[in-house]
Amino acid sequence: MLELECPAVTPETILKTSGHVERFTDFMVMDTETRDCFRADHLVEAAIEAALADRDNPLSPDAVADAKNDLTMVEGLGATELGTLLAKYKVVAPDTGNPLSAPYAFNLMFKTSIGPRGDLTGYLRPETAQGIFVNFRDLLYYNGNKLPFAAAQIGASFRNEISPRAGLLRVREFTQAEIEHFCDPEDKSHPRFVEVADLTPLLYTRDLQMGPTKKPAALRLGDAVAQGLIANETLGYFIGRTYMFFQAAGLDMNKVRFRQHLAHEMAHYSTDCWDGEVETSYGWVECCGIADRSAYDLSKHSEASKTDLTAYVPFDRPVVKEALTCIPDRKSIGKEFKGDAKVVHALLENFSEDEAAALQVGLESDAKSAKVTSAETGQEFTITPEMVTVKMTTKKVTGRTFIPSVVEPSFGIGRILYAAFEHAFYVRDEGKGGGGGASGESSGMGGESRTVFRFSPVIAPIKTTVFPLMAKPLFMDKAKEVASILRKAGISNMVDTTGASIGKRYARTDEIGVPFAITTDHTTAEDNTVTLRERDTMSQIRVPISDLVEVLNSLCSLAAKWDDVAPKYPAVDASTN
Amino acid sequence: MLELECPAVTPETILKTSGHVERFTDFMVMDTETRDCFRADHLVEAAIEAALADRDNPLSPDAVADAKNDLTMVEGLGATELGTLLAKYKVVAPDTGNPLSAPYAFNLMFKTSIGPRGDLTGYLRPETAQGIFVNFRDLLYYNGNKLPFAAAQIGASFRNEISPRAGLLRVREFTQAEIEHFCDPEDKSHPRFVEVADLTPLLYTRDLQMGPTKKPAALRLGDAVAQGLIANETLGYFIGRTYMFFQAAGLDMNKVRFRQHLAHEMAHYSTDCWDGEVETSYGWVECCGIADRSAYDLSKHSEASKTDLTAYVPFDRPVVKEALTCIPDRKSIGKEFKGDAKVVHALLENFSEDEAAALQVGLESDAKSAKVTSAETGQEFTITPEMVTVKMTTKKVTGRTFIPSVVEPSFGIGRILYAAFEHAFYVRDEGKGGGGGASGESSGMGGESRTVFRFSPVIAPIKTTVFPLMAKPLFMDKAKEVASILRKAGISNMVDTTGASIGKRYARTDEIGVPFAITTDHTTAEDNTVTLRERDTMSQIRVPISDLVEVLNSLCSLAAKWDDVAPKYPAVDASTN
Repeated sequence: MLELECPAVTPETILKTSGHVERFTDFMVMDTETRDCFRADHLVEAAIEAALADRDNPLSPDAVADAKNDLTMVEGLGATELGTLLAKYKVVAPDTGNPLSAPYAFNLMFKTSIGPRGDLTGYLRPETAQGIFVNFRDLLYYNGNKLPFAAAQIGASFRNEISPRAGLLRVREFTQAEIEHFCDPEDKSHPRFVEVADLTPLLYTRDLQMGPTKKPAALRLGDAVAQGLIANETLGYFIGRTYMFFQAAGLDMNKVRFRQHLAHEMAHYSTDCWDGEVETSYGWVECCGIADRSAYDLSKHSEASKTDLTAYVPFDRPVVKEALTCIPDRKSIGKEFKGDAKVVHALLENFSEDEAAALQVGLESDAKSAKVTSAETGQEFTITPEMVTVKMTTKKVTGRTFIPSVVEPSFGIGRILYAAFEHAFYVRDEGKGGGGGASGESSGMGGESRTVFRFSPVIAPIKTTVFPLMAKPLFMDKAKEVASILRKAGISNMVDTTGASIGKRYARTDEIGVPFAITTDHTTAEDNTVTLRERDTMSQIRVPISDLVEVLNSLCSLAAKWDDVAPKYPAVDASTN
Repeated sequence: MLELECPAVTPETILKTSGHVERFTDFMVMDTETRDCFRADHLVEAAIEAALADRDNPLSPDAVADAKNDLTMVEGLGATELGTLLAKYKVVAPDTGNPLSAPYAFNLMFKTSIGPRGDLTGYLRPETAQGIFVNFRDLLYYNGNKLPFAAAQIGASFRNEISPRAGLLRVREFTQAEIEHFCDPEDKSHPRFVEVADLTPLLYTRDLQMGPTKKPAALRLGDAVAQGLIANETLGYFIGRTYMFFQAAGLDMNKVRFRQHLAHEMAHYSTDCWDGEVETSYGWVECCGIADRSAYDLSKHSEASKTDLTAYVPFDRPVVKEALTCIPDRKSIGKEFKGDAKVVHALLENFSEDEAAALQVGLESDAKSAKVTSAETGQEFTITPEMVTVKMTTKKVTGRTFIPSVVEPSFGIGRILYAAFEHAFYVRDEGKGGGGGASGESSGMGGESRTVFRFSPVIAPIKTTVFPLMAKPLFMDKAKEVASILRKAGISNMVDTTGASIGKRYARTDEIGVPFAITTDHTTAEDNTVTLRERDTMSQIRVPISDLVEVLNSLCSLAAKWDDVAPKYPAVDASTN
């Protein structure tokens, strides 16, 4: 996969072409007295949820079904429909109860001015994707002009949210990670789809959303693609890889679903789109979107910049094909256009079938002429019948030229991080004994409850702590030696040489989600072994210092689990610590 | 070192406090007819350089010395001085030759508006440092309230340059890496200074810049600090670490110098400042700045936000000290201020000596009263003599409270990258034999010259290529096996299975700066060894596949050099390949 880093400040022309200047809006309503602003869809959602939850004025069963349907539809509605719902649910301004304005579009892009003259408008990019699209030609070249290929970018995106809220979930500046997978529109199979075909994520299809139970179902990805529930293998592949990514990041997979966009939510050019949603205390949160954007973006940019953004895929063997062709007449073109003759000749020679047909219509019309334009120079030329013959010919065609389709998995890193925090958090009751070996740790702590972050070792920022069992110079020296070995191997660690009890130091480790803890003690001085403790089982093993890097590397890359590693080493009875 | 990531869009109030809204400007001149904009200092520099290089109208020796001095001084001049120099060197607009406007300040920050109401101005951060300063209180807490400590941030910074130019060297958006090292203003020693004291970077001191030869000198850092050429150990430490960083990044250390700011270049609060400059085809380029910013930033932010940004350092043992103290009278304060009595009492009790002295002056004045203000609530209270006794008392003082100083190394990553590209590039003449083992590689290439990037293995984005010697299935399988082992170990690699000759594939490797190349061949199938080739010596050794990860890891982390590793394995005669 290619990686790139594009600027955040983007010239207006790019975002006009992509449609963001015109359409990247949310609908806003204003308190007609205080002039405070709110997102119309948020107010509608809150009002419907309040109506459904209102025990004093319960809705009729019909009204409940109606309200639930309205709730499903809110996302992606336009100004008129939102206005209708605001009236239907009698929504007024929060806090003040004042009447609201009608919903109106507010562009979410931060605007600025580029350069000293002040005449060039720029916007902060609302997504990282456009930078990849406008660099497509170079990327294709770097990939040896071969399809399919993907390019990825991680960086800040900016959206001037009307009402930022919920911590990391709705912010005005966020880290986005996007992959643009460019492929042949006629072949969206994926060579590695087989690797994910047996996964069974919770899929919340259009039918399930509009049906009576409104619940997702665990479906085998292979079946979902075969049955056409997911439009193609490439989309299915990225749903599968996202599933694996969320799992590795430590999310609770019972709280992860993939929701298909309803027809009215999708852009007109989109074939199919799935949101990876994660359940948190704020409800289901969209953490990623996986969309088949067809050839829309590249087509638009190619058109606006008059740049060739096509790819060429050779056939296995050349095909002989009948096609409407322009055969230019060198002599009469030369006579008419002189210095520009070459340009006109090449232009006509390379006309597509559609262009040739359009030219033929013009030449056979009453005007007996047609205007053609050079995409490169913008020059216009008037062509008359003697300059060109348009007729069916047979050609040997060696391949196809087309604007590639793009499948885009797009991740909001802050949201995923937030979900990882919520899902990883738990409270362990030390008093009641929290499983194997726990009794020793809680001694001296009066059986309090302990808070723990169950971070997956692959995402935990600190992989292990290193403690001397007591503040003795010999233990300290060994702890420093271990820390230095780990640092050189790139395993992030934290040395805790405070005089706190070992139980308290383990508690600190758990509280900030460090998966492992290493202790140096009497035995370390004798035989160069240390204890290695795992955070959630609280079990401990005795490992030679020389094995630590390999053991921790395999645990932290998820190549091995604790249950694979622990039996290879002597267990330590934690209660003797 | 703590790491953090702050937003790029910054509320105006922060950048007003830091002084950027008022002073983050370059001086611009405008072509009075075309209205094109130019940087005044760039035009002055170009004019002086042209005058010095003009062979038709050579300057007198005095005028040369004068011009060279002017050139040294250009950086950091104000509008008036630049105007004088523009007149002195008769500068007109480039290309048109039109007269220029007088220099005027142009603020380099991109301006935008935050939120839907449009009433909150924001700027894109011109440096990452301010985000660290405004988070100082939390950072200090995360560090256990201990000094010294450092916090680092890597991210995009934005400057609306008047004339972007020279590729990566002057751009409007760039990756900046900044460290803010917070320390005691009375103790700027650094515990690890000893690690860099023996380095001898080229130091271009103020005296050397203003002296006749205008050449830097290689000085031992330990001596430079001892002699006061560098203001303190912490600055010296970061100059040393920057030297080591540039060296590891593969820069030619004969083209790296540290230039001390001249007095007029430094901000008034700055104690000492050194730029790490690198020589490129564009001349000497500032790639980093290492500045002692004193307590300026934290003082300003503390003042503006009314937030305590002090640190506390305990004495080794408490000190008994005489101090002017306020002793509030609870009764009369209670009577006068009722509900606010507690606030006033605490306020007076915590007065510093200066505050107590000021209060005393007021109480002893004709007005017999003084106004005091609560920093937290902003409330103002009138204090009269019966409410407080101001007198000298003895106190046991356990430590000092102060606003920390900050030493800031700040790196422009794009510029360093650019310099690394230039310094790493060379052309090897294959025809004349480029050293040990080269003859074999050039066979079949007709003795052409080959371009090579001598990237340091630690920064090379691809660490090794993997080739099958020929396109035989057995060689291919082994190549894939090797690539998979490397990928799992996190060693980035590229497999080249094209049918090109091995010489050509090595040439491609060299051209994009891949330091190592692995080839699988007949012998690999027999004994699981491969050839490992080094880019610059072109020498090859025979290494067991099982050793590859360890060997490449030590070479790519610079823990070992090729000359250390090669003798441990059988050499391969490249001419037999």
